[in-house]
Amino acid sequence: MNDSIIIHPIGIIHTPFKDQQGTPIQPAVSKGTIGIIEIYPEFREGLRDLAGFERIWVIFWCHLSKGYKLRIIPYRDVVERGVFATRAPKRPNPIGISPVKLLSIDKENGILKIEGADILDGTPLLDIKPYIPSFDSYAKAKYGWLEHSEVKRETADNRFTNNN
Amino acid sequence: MNDSIIIHPIGIIHTPFKDQQGTPIQPAVSKGTIGIIEIYPEFREGLRDLAGFERIWVIFWCHLSKGYKLRIIPYRDVVERGVFATRAPKRPNPIGISPVKLLSIDKENGILKIEGADILDGTPLLDIKPYIPSFDSYAKAKYGWLEHSEVKRETADNRFTNNN
Repeated sequence: MNDSIIIHPIGIIHTPFKDQQGTPIQPAVSKGTIGIIEIYPEFREGLRDLAGFERIWVIFWCHLSKGYKLRIIPYRDVVERGVFATRAPKRPNPIGISPVKLLSIDKENGILKIEGADILDGTPLLDIKPYIPSFDSYAKAKYGWLEHSEVKRETADNRFTNNN
Repeated sequence: MNDSIIIHPIGIIHTPFKDQQGTPIQPAVSKGTIGIIEIYPEFREGLRDLAGFERIWVIFWCHLSKGYKLRIIPYRDVVERGVFATRAPKRPNPIGISPVKLLSIDKENGILKIEGADILDGTPLLDIKPYIPSFDSYAKAKYGWLEHSEVKRETADNRFTNNN
């Protein structure tokens, strides 16, 4: 049941954010931040037809998140919450998903320019998928404890990269 | 650069879908389909505070997808597309993301009841995240080649589980 799975990154993500401190918490609050995705040569042919999608899902591995706790104080709150009820990067499998804006594609060199990256520089890329509103968009979905949170923090501190 | 990453599933997903043939292509077209997520005991404490979120992201490993091609004919088209411009399960890292409806939580037994699962029975669960509209919802994002596709297929066939 607990068989392990081996994943090989398909590329690497470059952003201006060198550590967690000050990194935007989510794409929606990092408008204007430009990032570069580099796709390794053997996967570049898979980028065909991605042009025309306004947004893409970037699926990545939060490589600086070491260990995890099942209850944490998230950026947007002052009390502990179950980790699966948060988007904190420090989690049992630190996989991140971000619907970033796709600005340009250089398929030959495997370079995607993106906007709105809440991702640290050097992050391994696991997958890219097109953002499809009829699959992904639920504007009115209720959002639990966050509806009542009064913490409006928009950037990260180091709580999820420290070893505590 | 191509360092491998090892992932251990945190649970398993149970659905009525025993093979790819006939499985809904996305949650939006599998309304009414009930699935059960079983979280392994050591992770159940992380489910705290998930109640109140109408939807959750289920991040899973498409365990029946063997191998991949960089150009494939997706379910919703009749011509080849780059795999990263599709949501096909057969991809370099077959990670799936689905924003399913959360119907109930039994935290003690690690059981989540979900609706709208486009997921095969027995699929390993990698992560759960809350769906947060201000992070995830872009109702008007343009969606590339799919805007012009005239194929309105809503369920899968076996093209991504066969070995061809």
